[in-house]
Amino acid sequence: MAVKYVYFFGDGNAEGSGKMKNLLGGKGANLAEMTSIGLPVPAGFTISTEVCTEFYKNDRQYPAGLKDEVAANLAKIEQMMGKKFGDAANPLLVSVRSGARASMPGMMDTVLNLGLNDETVQGVIAQSGDERFAYDAYRRFIQMYSNVVLGMDGDILEHQLEQLKERRDVANDTDLSAADWKELIAGFKETVQQELGHPFPMDPQEQLWGAVGAVFGSWMNQRAITYRRLHSIPAEWGTAVNVQSMVFGNMGDDCATGVAFTRDPSTGDKIFYGEFLVNAQGEDVVAGIRTPQPINRDHGDSELPAMEEVLPDCYAQLVEIKNILEKHYRDMQDIEFTIEKHKLYMLQTRNGKRTAKAAVKIAVDMVDEGLISKEEAVLRVEPNQLDQLLHPSLDPDAERDVIAKGLPASPGAASGEVVFSADEAEEFAKGGHKVILVRVETSPEDIHGMHAAQGILTARGGMTSHAAVVARGMGKCCVAGCGDIKVDYKAQQFTDRAGKVFKKGDMITLDGSTGEVMAGKVPTVDPELTGDFGKLMVWVDDIRRLKVRTNADTPHDSKVARDFGAEGIGLCRTEHMFFEAERIMAVREMILSEDLEGRKRALAKIIPMQKGDFLGIFREMKGLPVTIRLLDPPLHEFLPHTDEEIAALAKEMNVSEGALKQKVESLHEFNPMLGHRGCRLGITFPEIYDMQVQAIMEAACELVKNEGFDIVPEIMIPLVGEVKELAILRANACRVADATNERYGTAVTYLVGTMIELPRAALTADAIAEEAEFFSFGTNDLTQTTYGLSRDDAGKFLPMYVEQEIYPEDPFVALDQSGVGQLVQMGCDKGRQTRPDIKLGICGEHGGEPSSVIFCHKIGLDYVSCSPFRVPIARLAAAHAVLLEQ
Amino acid sequence: MAVKYVYFFGDGNAEGSGKMKNLLGGKGANLAEMTSIGLPVPAGFTISTEVCTEFYKNDRQYPAGLKDEVAANLAKIEQMMGKKFGDAANPLLVSVRSGARASMPGMMDTVLNLGLNDETVQGVIAQSGDERFAYDAYRRFIQMYSNVVLGMDGDILEHQLEQLKERRDVANDTDLSAADWKELIAGFKETVQQELGHPFPMDPQEQLWGAVGAVFGSWMNQRAITYRRLHSIPAEWGTAVNVQSMVFGNMGDDCATGVAFTRDPSTGDKIFYGEFLVNAQGEDVVAGIRTPQPINRDHGDSELPAMEEVLPDCYAQLVEIKNILEKHYRDMQDIEFTIEKHKLYMLQTRNGKRTAKAAVKIAVDMVDEGLISKEEAVLRVEPNQLDQLLHPSLDPDAERDVIAKGLPASPGAASGEVVFSADEAEEFAKGGHKVILVRVETSPEDIHGMHAAQGILTARGGMTSHAAVVARGMGKCCVAGCGDIKVDYKAQQFTDRAGKVFKKGDMITLDGSTGEVMAGKVPTVDPELTGDFGKLMVWVDDIRRLKVRTNADTPHDSKVARDFGAEGIGLCRTEHMFFEAERIMAVREMILSEDLEGRKRALAKIIPMQKGDFLGIFREMKGLPVTIRLLDPPLHEFLPHTDEEIAALAKEMNVSEGALKQKVESLHEFNPMLGHRGCRLGITFPEIYDMQVQAIMEAACELVKNEGFDIVPEIMIPLVGEVKELAILRANACRVADATNERYGTAVTYLVGTMIELPRAALTADAIAEEAEFFSFGTNDLTQTTYGLSRDDAGKFLPMYVEQEIYPEDPFVALDQSGVGQLVQMGCDKGRQTRPDIKLGICGEHGGEPSSVIFCHKIGLDYVSCSPFRVPIARLAAAHAVLLEQ
Repeated sequence: MAVKYVYFFGDGNAEGSGKMKNLLGGKGANLAEMTSIGLPVPAGFTISTEVCTEFYKNDRQYPAGLKDEVAANLAKIEQMMGKKFGDAANPLLVSVRSGARASMPGMMDTVLNLGLNDETVQGVIAQSGDERFAYDAYRRFIQMYSNVVLGMDGDILEHQLEQLKERRDVANDTDLSAADWKELIAGFKETVQQELGHPFPMDPQEQLWGAVGAVFGSWMNQRAITYRRLHSIPAEWGTAVNVQSMVFGNMGDDCATGVAFTRDPSTGDKIFYGEFLVNAQGEDVVAGIRTPQPINRDHGDSELPAMEEVLPDCYAQLVEIKNILEKHYRDMQDIEFTIEKHKLYMLQTRNGKRTAKAAVKIAVDMVDEGLISKEEAVLRVEPNQLDQLLHPSLDPDAERDVIAKGLPASPGAASGEVVFSADEAEEFAKGGHKVILVRVETSPEDIHGMHAAQGILTARGGMTSHAAVVARGMGKCCVAGCGDIKVDYKAQQFTDRAGKVFKKGDMITLDGSTGEVMAGKVPTVDPELTGDFGKLMVWVDDIRRLKVRTNADTPHDSKVARDFGAEGIGLCRTEHMFFEAERIMAVREMILSEDLEGRKRALAKIIPMQKGDFLGIFREMKGLPVTIRLLDPPLHEFLPHTDEEIAALAKEMNVSEGALKQKVESLHEFNPMLGHRGCRLGITFPEIYDMQVQAIMEAACELVKNEGFDIVPEIMIPLVGEVKELAILRANACRVADATNERYGTAVTYLVGTMIELPRAALTADAIAEEAEFFSFGTNDLTQTTYGLSRDDAGKFLPMYVEQEIYPEDPFVALDQSGVGQLVQMGCDKGRQTRPDIKLGICGEHGGEPSSVIFCHKIGLDYVSCSPFRVPIARLAAAHAVLLEQ
Repeated sequence: MAVKYVYFFGDGNAEGSGKMKNLLGGKGANLAEMTSIGLPVPAGFTISTEVCTEFYKNDRQYPAGLKDEVAANLAKIEQMMGKKFGDAANPLLVSVRSGARASMPGMMDTVLNLGLNDETVQGVIAQSGDERFAYDAYRRFIQMYSNVVLGMDGDILEHQLEQLKERRDVANDTDLSAADWKELIAGFKETVQQELGHPFPMDPQEQLWGAVGAVFGSWMNQRAITYRRLHSIPAEWGTAVNVQSMVFGNMGDDCATGVAFTRDPSTGDKIFYGEFLVNAQGEDVVAGIRTPQPINRDHGDSELPAMEEVLPDCYAQLVEIKNILEKHYRDMQDIEFTIEKHKLYMLQTRNGKRTAKAAVKIAVDMVDEGLISKEEAVLRVEPNQLDQLLHPSLDPDAERDVIAKGLPASPGAASGEVVFSADEAEEFAKGGHKVILVRVETSPEDIHGMHAAQGILTARGGMTSHAAVVARGMGKCCVAGCGDIKVDYKAQQFTDRAGKVFKKGDMITLDGSTGEVMAGKVPTVDPELTGDFGKLMVWVDDIRRLKVRTNADTPHDSKVARDFGAEGIGLCRTEHMFFEAERIMAVREMILSEDLEGRKRALAKIIPMQKGDFLGIFREMKGLPVTIRLLDPPLHEFLPHTDEEIAALAKEMNVSEGALKQKVESLHEFNPMLGHRGCRLGITFPEIYDMQVQAIMEAACELVKNEGFDIVPEIMIPLVGEVKELAILRANACRVADATNERYGTAVTYLVGTMIELPRAALTADAIAEEAEFFSFGTNDLTQTTYGLSRDDAGKFLPMYVEQEIYPEDPFVALDQSGVGQLVQMGCDKGRQTRPDIKLGICGEHGGEPSSVIFCHKIGLDYVSCSPFRVPIARLAAAHAVLLEQ
């Protein structure tokens, strides 16, 4: 049997399916799947990835028989669409797109309107009755084809277009007439001849094979090769080519184009929700240049006519398709459609992006509707997305000075200073300011500014505009299409609906759930964690194995974390207590003491305060485990460094400025990260750790004795790199702890363990486990030492590393599993080898990052610990870990 | 058969032997060995380590039968020595010493003169005819026993002695009379009664068992337990107890004591060499308080009578023993002897410490004499010791203003400023000064000062004085017993033989090989690397497998290293070239450029200079491999940092001071060790590495083309932590290298590889090896990151860590095999897994440290690279590695 190279799709029948991604590429498989479930997809065919492989095997020759197969499939399209490729009267136009297994930048993307030439353009005029439309399509084709297929610099023709507009003295492309386009096309063809030495191809077959060859050729261009190398994609995979008939939503008033979500992507409500434009191209809806019309009256308060009113039959068909889609894909869909002369075509369907609130509601609803299982529901909510739900919203009782109203494009609330460009947003944010990015509309160039901003406000664009979609993905609050405001970039200001001027730096507040824009800063309230969220989290907790603790240093943080479901404290940093205003003086006195006696005097002042902290935290945690890390940072962190500060402190402490400065200088370190800190302080100044252990144990003994508490404090020694350090410090800690128990007449049990935060600790964890009852992986410092990368200094190159994909992600955000993770795994294995019941946890910031939590589950940690607000995220990720394993 | 607990030795017969260390401890086994080869050892017995084990098993009860065995063995001693334990007329006195398998601080050490009481002291008076001697021995016994056996604070009796001296108005113990000692003994006994509530034991049997019990008890004291814990010594090993009859060299003029070496420990010449004192104790010789007499006339120019003249029969016996010893131990011995009433006793023999020169000569001579094999000879020389031979000695043609002459105690030559205390020596050395430590005599408290000094000069003491022995061990030059000088600590000066005054800070020069002291600084010449040394190194090179390269950045260093036997360059640091005076301006211009064009202009000025460097180095290395590391340090290292320096540079460069300061500040890093350096510079500023690769390749191409060279440059990318960094930089390097080859019309092959100096590089070495043709382990940085320990900042705690044995050694000196070594091993294994023929080397400073070199051999590296002067050390260590494996 001859090998099959080409796979047809159209009119409800497809030779491929959604499962054939390897053969048809991602795009080809999706088109086949949509077709086969009965959606009206414009007919087309996919040239398989095997052709690409053959092509390169045979010195860039196509396999025998390919041409015939393509011709046969083209004929099928012609028949189905009632048009003919290259026909002067009723020509078929096609798009040609690449499509590999994985989406791959650097390859040829798309050529539209292929099949146009001086003759067929006449047919398009005849069919559409719109000469301007036809010539516009033709000139676009020449531009696109010359650039991506013929390899001409795109600026050359673009410049020619700009020159024409100057001659005509018009600003926009839309101001040019059919005659202008016709003149331009003639000019374009001349330029192509001059630049390339051959005419622009008029033969549609030549155009088609040119485009197909360009797709296959682009598989081996430098950018694609580099990308594959960086992402370990084998060259053998190859790319497919998709040829599909063109349909037009801009051929007249019986044409339209639109996008829709099968449920509300913002709230999750079961309402069919979308926007469309009559006589328009798809990009017109997304770009936000014209304000789109609603598809129905179920949502919003637009006064424009709805699709169910204007095109009722098409709308009815769309509703039917919506129902098919939700049943088939069992998830909310984001769809694109075009209506050409009253005929509906589906261009795309995919799982819709949604807010966290919507994700939770849709997941819970679909369980209730019997569409999905609880486990599937849990997997439907991205852990990171929860962040949106866990942050404050505007206080409903606070006064609001509403100055404008737009679309509630992405929920949440935010206050900040007004800025007008992405660069400024980033700059202000770096300086510690909270900003609101205000734009007429946003584009991909603004992404970094949107990241830096607290919220985004745009004057134009709908719920599916760039600003709205991106903001929802980021979990940022966004008010879009706010026509009430007039933005003046030049003057760096905007005016509200009353004409009041807001300048750069003025404070405003957005409510992304109502679309309101307010002057000044409006207070917020804590999020509600019940309802659908509560229901989902019950399922989550039933599924997960990994415990989730929190990093908390105060009774207040401890309470917040408990409310978020924390099951203990994994990291209580005692030095944070040292910094409090009334204590810092005693701490400095300790540091400045020249002898042991002086240090002991100062420590005696600190101990009652530390004890008080621990009492508060233990009470708040109600018997849950609490891991307390003894002093970690270098002592110079507690001293001032500028001359002014030193002078002030010297006066306050009644010591000479010179002596104080000398002490500060003597404590200076070249690489404080690798300096005299952590357990090294405990070794050189044992009295500091003794004081801390005493404070911990006194608090515990008092609670056990007087309040009937049940508590096992976990004393954690930081920065151990060699077991002998721990042996000495553990012996000291036990001595102090036992003495305290004796003094109180109690028998409070306690654990002594260590952070594993240096490569050497992981490498020698078998020895260290001899002295440690628990390990807590301090992956922040472990990442710094494993990479030899200072978090404080990485700013000059780390962004570039992430951008160039040298690092797949910032290793301080997502745990580097292949390097740092290897050490964590090694630490676990070696630790358990010595002490099978050793408690294992992680307390770096990775403990709240989903991919890292999943890794921690996989290697069998007992718990992760993270900041209070990330506790629910870690819980959900831990449940995902279980489900992904199955 | 009953278990045997006690092992006798004496009169040529011993029940134990040198091989029974586990049962008899180190000391007991040695005494048995000496006895059994026929040496006249004072008779005694060893209570085995099994008794210790039994003792602790049975709740501190001695095993049955022990008392009888001890009594029987004591009777044997009595018989052999013709004395009786506790006898009033002719009493046997014994010493009691602990002795475990490994020497162990914290345990009870020694009690001498045991058996003395108010009655037996009369017997000692009668036998010695010296009342003062007898009472002195008695009071010493009470002091020692009260302290180490009865546990009394040693200061109490010492204070009582001081009070007596004050009452008598004398300064030294030697000024006290027999009557004084008698009075003191009465007082001591009263004090013991008061302090302890029971009288000092008068019964010799009670004394003996008290001392034995104290030895066993000390096995479980806190210091011993801690020591065992830190050194992984099991408690089950236990300690032995040695009981040996006392002999006295200070009982009259027919008594003497001395120490000797079977060959000259300074030159290695085959001359029996030693010193003795008539009517003296062993410690008198070592302490250097009296100037000792020579044992013969073969050496030195002492005018004092020699032993061969004064005690010819004893000397003849000693020579006979010397010959037995060298045959038996097949090495030069360091012996201690005592003559009691004309009878010679051997107290100790051990392999003698020696200078490097002596070590080499003795080893080579012993091969010639047929005593040892070449392999043994190679093992006889400690690699680190060679250092002494590799440094300059005084220029024989230089003028010498000799101001004094002492003993040539440790060879070599040194100049420095005079200091009079160890603390000052250390302080001056920290300030960058070279110093000579001048002392009347030295003691163990002076060790740190001796380390810090270039050389040591003492006014008193012989060739075996503390100063002499320690200096030889350290490889420091030392002139001892220089009676020509008068040291005045108070005035901080010394006067020479002419009465000329030398004050603190004055420059002097020592010649440790002649004993001469010179005013001012005398020039030096390079060492001679032929003769015995050359002979030994030929054997070394025949044995070793590991190649030895050098770290060299200049043609001069390259030449020195070649002369020392380097087989290539393992690390050529290109940044050292950047610092040179005429280049630093261009480098700074590059750093201060705001754009790529500016940087390229500056780099164009640097490239000819870099190329010149490489031409010089390649020529010097004559085709041997040269590994060149591209720029590594952060750019701010090239800029000035103080305000004054910045102002000067700004003026010189014609830029504003403010702008320059701002640039310097913008380059500031919190942890430069972990900052924007190494390959991160190559990624962000590819033009810098491009320039360097071009310079390397141009130099290579020119030499190949014009001078017929055969050369394969090895281009090394530093600080890689992720394979993608290397993939990008390797591609860049290949592009530049290939273009250079094309320009020259050459086909110079080159390798591209990387440093493995970050934990992540070792952990992912399998991936990195895909892009690397060689690995060079940068163990300096790898140690810093693995330990999280900045070399620049470790001063505040690292010395304490080494002192407390938390770290067995400074990990920047000797490679930490269990932690850092694990990563090196992993890097090798993973690297070879991907690329079996990958070249592996090490270029950290560990490459010249013997234990690290042996480790590198074990894990199968291809080469080590070290500083030029350490190349012979590494060669020798590499040979040791082979021999130790066998």
